[in-house]
Amino acid sequence: MNAALSDRPLWNVLDWNSLDAAQRAQALRRPAQASSAETAAAVRAILEQVRRGGDAALRELARRFDGFAPEAFAVSAEEFDAAERALPASLRAAIDEAAERIARFHEAGAGAPYALDTAPGVRCERVLRPIRRVGLYVPAGSAPLPSTALMLGVPARLAGCPQIALCTPPRGDGSADPAVLYAARRCGIARAFKLGGAQAIAAMAFGTASVPKCDKLFGPGNAYVTEAKRQIAQREDGAAIDMPAGPSEVLVIADAGADPAFVAADLLSQAEHGPDSQALLLSDEPALIACVGRELERQLEALPRAAIARRALAASSAIRVASIEQALAISNDYAPEHLILALRDARAWLPKVAAAGSVFLGDWAPEALGDYCSGTNHVLPTSGAARFVGGLNVASFQVAITVQEVSPAGLAAIGPCAIELAEAEGLHAHREAVALRLRAASARRGA
Amino acid sequence: MNAALSDRPLWNVLDWNSLDAAQRAQALRRPAQASSAETAAAVRAILEQVRRGGDAALRELARRFDGFAPEAFAVSAEEFDAAERALPASLRAAIDEAAERIARFHEAGAGAPYALDTAPGVRCERVLRPIRRVGLYVPAGSAPLPSTALMLGVPARLAGCPQIALCTPPRGDGSADPAVLYAARRCGIARAFKLGGAQAIAAMAFGTASVPKCDKLFGPGNAYVTEAKRQIAQREDGAAIDMPAGPSEVLVIADAGADPAFVAADLLSQAEHGPDSQALLLSDEPALIACVGRELERQLEALPRAAIARRALAASSAIRVASIEQALAISNDYAPEHLILALRDARAWLPKVAAAGSVFLGDWAPEALGDYCSGTNHVLPTSGAARFVGGLNVASFQVAITVQEVSPAGLAAIGPCAIELAEAEGLHAHREAVALRLRAASARRGA
Ligand SMILES: [Zn+2]
Ligand SMILES: [Zn+2]
Repeated sequence: MNAALSDRPLWNVLDWNSLDAAQRAQALRRPAQASSAETAAAVRAILEQVRRGGDAALRELARRFDGFAPEAFAVSAEEFDAAERALPASLRAAIDEAAERIARFHEAGAGAPYALDTAPGVRCERVLRPIRRVGLYVPAGSAPLPSTALMLGVPARLAGCPQIALCTPPRGDGSADPAVLYAARRCGIARAFKLGGAQAIAAMAFGTASVPKCDKLFGPGNAYVTEAKRQIAQREDGAAIDMPAGPSEVLVIADAGADPAFVAADLLSQAEHGPDSQALLLSDEPALIACVGRELERQLEALPRAAIARRALAASSAIRVASIEQALAISNDYAPEHLILALRDARAWLPKVAAAGSVFLGDWAPEALGDYCSGTNHVLPTSGAARFVGGLNVASFQVAITVQEVSPAGLAAIGPCAIELAEAEGLHAHREAVALRLRAASARRGA
Repeated sequence: MNAALSDRPLWNVLDWNSLDAAQRAQALRRPAQASSAETAAAVRAILEQVRRGGDAALRELARRFDGFAPEAFAVSAEEFDAAERALPASLRAAIDEAAERIARFHEAGAGAPYALDTAPGVRCERVLRPIRRVGLYVPAGSAPLPSTALMLGVPARLAGCPQIALCTPPRGDGSADPAVLYAARRCGIARAFKLGGAQAIAAMAFGTASVPKCDKLFGPGNAYVTEAKRQIAQREDGAAIDMPAGPSEVLVIADAGADPAFVAADLLSQAEHGPDSQALLLSDEPALIACVGRELERQLEALPRAAIARRALAASSAIRVASIEQALAISNDYAPEHLILALRDARAWLPKVAAAGSVFLGDWAPEALGDYCSGTNHVLPTSGAARFVGGLNVASFQVAITVQEVSPAGLAAIGPCAIELAEAEGLHAHREAVALRLRAASARRGA
């Protein structure tokens, strides 16, 4: 354990109703997310290099960052086969099982086309189309993330996207992680590339000889990947992105009856993701907060990533509130990515949740289940984006197109309304597009 | 008519299959959209001024840009009443009628919550919540746009947004347009503000003493409004926006049987929106293209906004294609905001449409109907964004939250899968959050 860190308090223990407005804002402040000017400039240079140089630039960047460039970025069918053989049967089974539940939940939530006559002879409808070319990014970093391959790949497949590309950083030996490849193939993805970082995002946004150009990019990543996606989303020649990305976060609301060991374990699950993760505990029971603090210390003893978790906790808070009602109000303003309701009557509180990515009800739903295999998606809005956007789902991989089909009778029914409004808005050609058709229809009836 | 303009050809008449790749790209190139460095800098200054100065800054900016500042930006109940009285009954009726059809179409397409057990004891669901604070911008410019107030206000109301603010630029006499106010009230909007331009966007994003801070901003606008929304969407202290915005556009696919007068009227409807509007005609019938050209000239004679329309047409093209099949392929790559299929069997071609904002089938569905009152939304993806996003709908005003509720039996069923994946990903605390609950559940069963 880091001695310097152990002298500090583990986390901030606060009483909401003794805080002034500035202290409250400080207690809920998220770690700074703006990427540094250096990161932004470095990413800008990489994007430009890949846009102009294509595969040759990718090779040059791979040599610079990874120390070597593979002969081919594309994962061959043989590599997919070898990955499958290399994987323990138990892990293959877990990936299969998770994929199945994720598919079941996402399929049930997929939108449907609909049609109705808004007036006699005026058929309006909405049809759904898969986004034609999507790019998925599966980070590796400290560990491979086959679960992310499933969370991106399953809805992409359910949406029916005809072209799915997946980039994942190569390992030290130049190969792609076999669990990621197995999960990708499980989702029907045949085009995977051993490419990581901002250059992978650039390759999928602009296209190169080996990597196909994509219309929309999905998936989490480090600061460079996140900045690359941000810059790509702003370019006219770029691609859309799934959602703004920030460090992962959890907010736990626990009452006196909550199990301190469970609560501590969930806070640590969040804290081990990275030093900039945020884990907040809100409770109306000071004794519970104290017990959770002791449990955190106890569980940290056995945690391999304890140093990372301690850094995350040092920027996190346990906040005493006057009531669960008040905790919910705070949570709705914070709009956490993950919200755990460790409450005796968790279900009854759900209607009060106005903004959150994913909610875990009661004592037996650790956030880890949502990360892996309950069936919900783990790509969720961070940084308060849950105020205005939900997590990834099948619709994220589709476009909705509206359609209108109008008969001459339908035009006669609603045309005058359009003419009245066009006149009010001073748009004469709009008026005439309706009026000349009305005249033509009437002339044809007369003929 | 402008003599200099009349010497030029009306539009570009091209043959797709005689063009090389660069010429094809040029034919489909949209008018440049990047805002100038001057616009960006001016907007940046305005945002900063309003963020720091609040209402006082808004007053100062109103004096600078409009020549006067109203006593209050908020529209009073008396002003709403007066607007209603001032409006001709026929226009009130048209607004009511349009609002009703828009509501009917949008309500039918609103998402629904759903729930299912992904395993025994594992209840997963998706609930929908209105975005709590939304801001609508209704431009005025050359003419007021009550239709835009409906297209934003109706889905906001159907989504159940508890706080809806609407900004619209004041007229020369300092009042808000009565048709816009009537349409707003028709949607249940009581908080309207006489504010236009980048400063209106800033006010809704940051909040001032009189204008409430919003989580998401909606609506079209001029270059300053568009740039302000773009900048706001990038700020951590900003707000989300509905979609990237560009000049309006239509692509018409017409066969030999199409009525040249109808086609010309639809192209002019688009062209009169602004000099940067784009109107494209694709046809396999050169005679039709020639007839449409003559019809354009004829109809331009009577068009009040002919000068604007001519400038838009000068940057637009009529393109001869080998087949309707080829026209659809070109259209899908272009991804038009509006797509008119002036075809004998328009319905049969719909399955081939992969990317478009809104589609108009056959001869009797002018785009003007979709602009006003067929029921579909007229806030649609421009600039090719239809490749990855659809038009405004109820879901644009909601967030989807996923939920999981797990019993001890449910945890026993899916916990081992989560443990296997957490181990593969090297996330020990995730593993333990599941494992210690499994141990506790088993101990409790034993007790
Ligand atoms: Zn996690
Ligand atoms: Zn229009």
